[in-house]
Amino acid sequence: MSVSRLIKTRRSIRKFRKKTIAKRLIDEILEAGRWAPSGLNNQPWKFLVLDKAKKDSLAEFTHYSSVIKEADKAILVFLDKKASYNREKDLMAIGACIQNMLLYIHFQKLGACWLGEILNQKDELRRYFKIPKNLELEAVIALGYPSVFPKRTKRKQLRSLIEKR
Amino acid sequence: MSVSRLIKTRRSIRKFRKKTIAKRLIDEILEAGRWAPSGLNNQPWKFLVLDKAKKDSLAEFTHYSSVIKEADKAILVFLDKKASYNREKDLMAIGACIQNMLLYIHFQKLGACWLGEILNQKDELRRYFKIPKNLELEAVIALGYPSVFPKRTKRKQLRSLIEKR
Repeated sequence: MSVSRLIKTRRSIRKFRKKTIAKRLIDEILEAGRWAPSGLNNQPWKFLVLDKAKKDSLAEFTHYSSVIKEADKAILVFLDKKASYNREKDLMAIGACIQNMLLYIHFQKLGACWLGEILNQKDELRRYFKIPKNLELEAVIALGYPSVFPKRTKRKQLRSLIEKR
Repeated sequence: MSVSRLIKTRRSIRKFRKKTIAKRLIDEILEAGRWAPSGLNNQPWKFLVLDKAKKDSLAEFTHYSSVIKEADKAILVFLDKKASYNREKDLMAIGACIQNMLLYIHFQKLGACWLGEILNQKDELRRYFKIPKNLELEAVIALGYPSVFPKRTKRKQLRSLIEKR
């Protein structure tokens, strides 16, 4: 599959089959994230993978608990403040890192949902999971084998996104 | 090429051949960006493509002017404040959008460099290019046909990036 097709057929998956993702695949997903570009190559990301049992506690911290409960695993993505050099550029680098993982997940016929609302409770979540203070939660990726593959969401017209000079 | 290979063989390209990128390819690159995920699907990005003649003025605004002068084109990536709902999540979405473009550029055997230092002069740059106030510059992508393909930069060991619980 060409990368443009991969990019365009990726979806946010919220319904999953009861099938476990192999450890090897999880490592490959993180590996895809690890190769993202970052400013000064500072690689400001860290990951915490929660499996079936532990991820269910996450569901307490979001209104979208069903996605987390349905998923096989959850990957917490942190900004490591010790590695940070410019917060705004670091956040873009983390976005690039997440996109690498989402594309690799889709390539492997797995599915994922990038969860952001859960950040409203990141301090409570940090205490619960005993996350070190230098790690700031930026996203949770719920993932598993898709059971329902939704239609593509709409996008703005390309011409409306292009400034002319 | 598998997406993991594409991800791992992408490089920051700073030296380019004197060859023009077709308009069709530029549209396909922006199209890859357009399909990135964003919080609430708000798609907070806008693009300005500067061709050979216009991009050279960009070089005045950065210490890394040679990359811009060498490149065939430059894509300015903005956060559209009118479309913004959460600045930090929007920045991650823009990072995902940029990564889609970088991967597509690499897929097409083009090369690019994601420039960030130029943001230090984003206000001066906005005045010069008469950019509307709602558009905030977040990155410049210099691109063209690669002439020098550098070795891969180092990455932290995967195990050092994984928190255990």
